[in-house]
Amino acid sequence: MRDFTNDHSALALNTASLGHNLDGHGAGWSPERVIDACAERGFGSIVFWRREIGSRAVAIGERARAAGLSVAGLCRTPFLTGAEAMDRQAAIDGAKSAIDMAAGLGAAVLTIVVGGVHPDTKGTEESLKILTERLGEIVPYAAERGVKLALEPLNPFYAGNRSCLTTVRDAVDICDALGAPNLGIAVDVYHVWWDSDLDAQLQRAGAGRIFGYHLCDWLAETRDVLLDRGMMGDGVADLRAIRGSVEGAGYAGPCEVEIFSAQNWWKRDPGEVLDVIVERFRALC
Amino acid sequence: MRDFTNDHSALALNTASLGHNLDGHGAGWSPERVIDACAERGFGSIVFWRREIGSRAVAIGERARAAGLSVAGLCRTPFLTGAEAMDRQAAIDGAKSAIDMAAGLGAAVLTIVVGGVHPDTKGTEESLKILTERLGEIVPYAAERGVKLALEPLNPFYAGNRSCLTTVRDAVDICDALGAPNLGIAVDVYHVWWDSDLDAQLQRAGAGRIFGYHLCDWLAETRDVLLDRGMMGDGVADLRAIRGSVEGAGYAGPCEVEIFSAQNWWKRDPGEVLDVIVERFRALC
Repeated sequence: MRDFTNDHSALALNTASLGHNLDGHGAGWSPERVIDACAERGFGSIVFWRREIGSRAVAIGERARAAGLSVAGLCRTPFLTGAEAMDRQAAIDGAKSAIDMAAGLGAAVLTIVVGGVHPDTKGTEESLKILTERLGEIVPYAAERGVKLALEPLNPFYAGNRSCLTTVRDAVDICDALGAPNLGIAVDVYHVWWDSDLDAQLQRAGAGRIFGYHLCDWLAETRDVLLDRGMMGDGVADLRAIRGSVEGAGYAGPCEVEIFSAQNWWKRDPGEVLDVIVERFRALC
Repeated sequence: MRDFTNDHSALALNTASLGHNLDGHGAGWSPERVIDACAERGFGSIVFWRREIGSRAVAIGERARAAGLSVAGLCRTPFLTGAEAMDRQAAIDGAKSAIDMAAGLGAAVLTIVVGGVHPDTKGTEESLKILTERLGEIVPYAAERGVKLALEPLNPFYAGNRSCLTTVRDAVDICDALGAPNLGIAVDVYHVWWDSDLDAQLQRAGAGRIFGYHLCDWLAETRDVLLDRGMMGDGVADLRAIRGSVEGAGYAGPCEVEIFSAQNWWKRDPGEVLDVIVERFRALC
């Protein structure tokens, strides 16, 4: 395992950790100000959300790299399955538009949160088939533009309306089915920390298909399943063991801190949040 | 698969579906009134909660059987792991007391919700070991009293504070480790509906270790992870497929309807709720 005690150049900020500056959350920092604050603190890379980029993908990507940061990723495609993706062509077009943005930004990876259960079906099986079929059209489009796509399984709580894809196992199954070098997975502690099958499935994925590793913590007494994530060390996830599994499978990329926390971290000064992230990352992750 | 279209004698009521008559929920019906209402409607069995039984286990069990109902189960042991089970002996004593109640009631099965992550540890692995060790002392006590113990995996959302046991896979692992004929699993649609590994793991469990099958539905837009369960047919779980897997593994016991629903079903007249359960069970389950 890599030793981050005295070197946090592997650390990436997912800008969601500062509250997105939307919906009344966050301090209103521009992408440029977030870039500078990360660069000053020695973060190695940054991950944006589409809502922050708008039509400025190329400029923001260049700005990040000029400050010494790589753009590790972009969040995320619109849903590809479920109630919000009933129109197949619109779902595919939405994904292609996100791929274009990722290419403009120079983001290494575009994350896919797949969407929930198709309303005309029951269970997750049919929706996973729909997802796989649609990915078959999207993945080559991304490959042509040099964008890697990372399927992110979400905690099973979200299976109904956000992600019929709930485990690394199912994500690797889809990767196997499509067999494309630019299709892999993102592993987020929040979603997979409970899974005793994780290590085996990451081995199955292998280094060539792990495109991202996302960090936060699971608070034992989670008050809100969407917006009450914990800072590393404040919860019950075994962060060292999970990173051990991820790196044991060959992953050597960025460790991306992504903390949705409406009632706690989003209320704090972004500079303080970034300082705490660096400190916790070095000490605990 | 069994055909329930014209025969719902396999139907069991878990009394939680009527709101427990506690905390301001439910219509205040006594166990006797619930028993009679179920018997009138042709339910085959009933499952109580300890809070409803108090010191009247023997009398209530006899009353149920006199009305023609079997007592399919009792919910549940106090937590065996996690923050509420730091005192090993107290946790074991609490489980033994619940076993005594189940024996007095004549309940076929005592359900175990295991508890969350031990506060001195991270991840679920160590807590599952603690659980297994404590079960080793409890299982023989139950066997002497003719009580079967059913490990119930809960949705991973609860892994931190309610159940470090999240999958049928992990539950069968523990059954394998202890190898006791009176230790098995309970399969609850709410907790396992998303799991693509379910069928394989139920096959692994086999008929001799599936001690219960719990029914409700997962609402796509779940508002509260504890108290917003859906009535069968109102959600996205594939009820027929799950029962197919359960029965495919050899299970032929009661189908127990357990719906925690503070804002909907608990506000309705219990007689109406029971009528809807029978109707939905025959048509959709």
